[in-house]
Amino acid sequence: MFFEGSEKKIEVIVTPATPSLRSLGRPFWEGMVAKAHAEILSSVSNDYCDAYLLSESSLFVWDNRFLMLTCGTTTLVNAATHFIDELGEQAIAFASYQRKNEYLSHLQATSFTDDLQLLRKKISGKAFRIGHLDSHHHYIFYTDKPYEADTSDITNELLMYHISGDAADYLRSDKQDIAGVRATLALAEMLPGFSFDDFLFEPFGYSVNGIRGREYITIHVTPQENSSYVSFETNLDMSQQPLDIFARLLGTLDPGSWDVIHFNAPHSSCGFPAHICLGSANIQLEHGYQLHFSHYQQLYHEKLLPEAI
Amino acid sequence: MFFEGSEKKIEVIVTPATPSLRSLGRPFWEGMVAKAHAEILSSVSNDYCDAYLLSESSLFVWDNRFLMLTCGTTTLVNAATHFIDELGEQAIAFASYQRKNEYLSHLQATSFTDDLQLLRKKISGKAFRIGHLDSHHHYIFYTDKPYEADTSDITNELLMYHISGDAADYLRSDKQDIAGVRATLALAEMLPGFSFDDFLFEPFGYSVNGIRGREYITIHVTPQENSSYVSFETNLDMSQQPLDIFARLLGTLDPGSWDVIHFNAPHSSCGFPAHICLGSANIQLEHGYQLHFSHYQQLYHEKLLPEAI
Repeated sequence: MFFEGSEKKIEVIVTPATPSLRSLGRPFWEGMVAKAHAEILSSVSNDYCDAYLLSESSLFVWDNRFLMLTCGTTTLVNAATHFIDELGEQAIAFASYQRKNEYLSHLQATSFTDDLQLLRKKISGKAFRIGHLDSHHHYIFYTDKPYEADTSDITNELLMYHISGDAADYLRSDKQDIAGVRATLALAEMLPGFSFDDFLFEPFGYSVNGIRGREYITIHVTPQENSSYVSFETNLDMSQQPLDIFARLLGTLDPGSWDVIHFNAPHSSCGFPAHICLGSANIQLEHGYQLHFSHYQQLYHEKLLPEAI
Repeated sequence: MFFEGSEKKIEVIVTPATPSLRSLGRPFWEGMVAKAHAEILSSVSNDYCDAYLLSESSLFVWDNRFLMLTCGTTTLVNAATHFIDELGEQAIAFASYQRKNEYLSHLQATSFTDDLQLLRKKISGKAFRIGHLDSHHHYIFYTDKPYEADTSDITNELLMYHISGDAADYLRSDKQDIAGVRATLALAEMLPGFSFDDFLFEPFGYSVNGIRGREYITIHVTPQENSSYVSFETNLDMSQQPLDIFARLLGTLDPGSWDVIHFNAPHSSCGFPAHICLGSANIQLEHGYQLHFSHYQQLYHEKLLPEAI
């Protein structure tokens, strides 16, 4: 029943001279997704964005940028190099490629270091890891060509491990349905005005994309006991929302540990459950992005149970 | 410069009807070590034990048992199956095979699950993991044939990660020598009456075996910045020593995190640096062994630094 929920992620901003990425059409993006060994399940669109729900995570396409996340044992780096081959390196204004620590990294097709070798054959960039190898950590590669980031180009990620409690039990049960999961996650309440596109996997697992104008959210739930993982990502300004989304999700899903990643957004642990922040970093990237990473653990001594193999 | 310090470990107790393991002779043990892709560097013996220092860790042979630890990318499981092939499954009264979480598990030749498949073709046993996959954890396989453990058959392990401070700086320096490392670790003071056999690797890294009667200690130092690891293991009764060995080593090496494993020995965190114990387990195995595992982290918020790749 093991499934690697942790996502690989590529984000690309193209130059003003590049034609609209949305105009490349669905077959182009189907080809991109296929390179990662995933497929498109459904989509939702508005005037600004095409949001594709994938068999493994999500793809968002705007006119001048795209964001693709894939989990499991997908090969996202192959989609990244395919994109560069198709549009040319000069079409790219800025690109980043990221991976988190995985539960079972030896089951992955490639390591981040392997991916780097492929990427660097196509485009020049810098890379580093934040966090120790024996704890939660995050890898990022980003292009080093000149580019000035828009300060409003923000990203907020909440990555939750070992969810527990009633909501976790429901998400692992065979009694769940789309409406029930939406209610459990309080999607409508947290995110008024969003158009959602979601999918319930068998026997469990849930993905949702949401868009509102240029804004997006995506949530992926891998509820498997002993290796659960739930990710939330958005470009929303978190300070302007009707609810404190991170605090609400943490309260509902009660994870044993969680990480927060921000680009160009302030960090606050206000409303978080009782915790210890084991480590954090604030890193100024050359292009103007302010990267924040922090790793939290609930403030309790856990009685560990043996897991038979 | 990366080196995986974390050890794989096999321990075998043979039946009373089995001839002395020491009488198998050095060529037999050289063959065993070669199966793991290691080699014998030196040895020290007394009336009870032959202790071999290996290119990757250690081998201790008594008349009725042996203990072999290998680190790096060695294939210890092949030595384990070779031993069973050579002596026969019926010669084994009790055996255990253990692995810790590794820094870069995808670089290992096999996973613990792979090793289990090989072991279970030769001998029946149970296996479990203690600790979450995204945190420090420990794997153990042990035979399930009837056996009654001697309550005096104890093991104490202290596994230290991310050592820091003056001692760590010295162990990473090009100015170290055997006498200096022994003094840094206070070997003579901590372990009076022990015969030591040690080796300083190039450009750094240190291993020592020590024996006194039937007692042993072994210490392996992988001081590499960002992936340092130091292990201490012994069958000494820790309560009867002139110094509190764990507290002394923790004070000297100032690790960011550490794990303690005991078999048939009480656990005490007395004298440990300020810490949070993130999780622990006490598990009673069928054969009478009481297994303890606990994972500690220093009680501070670490400012994480990006590590370029």
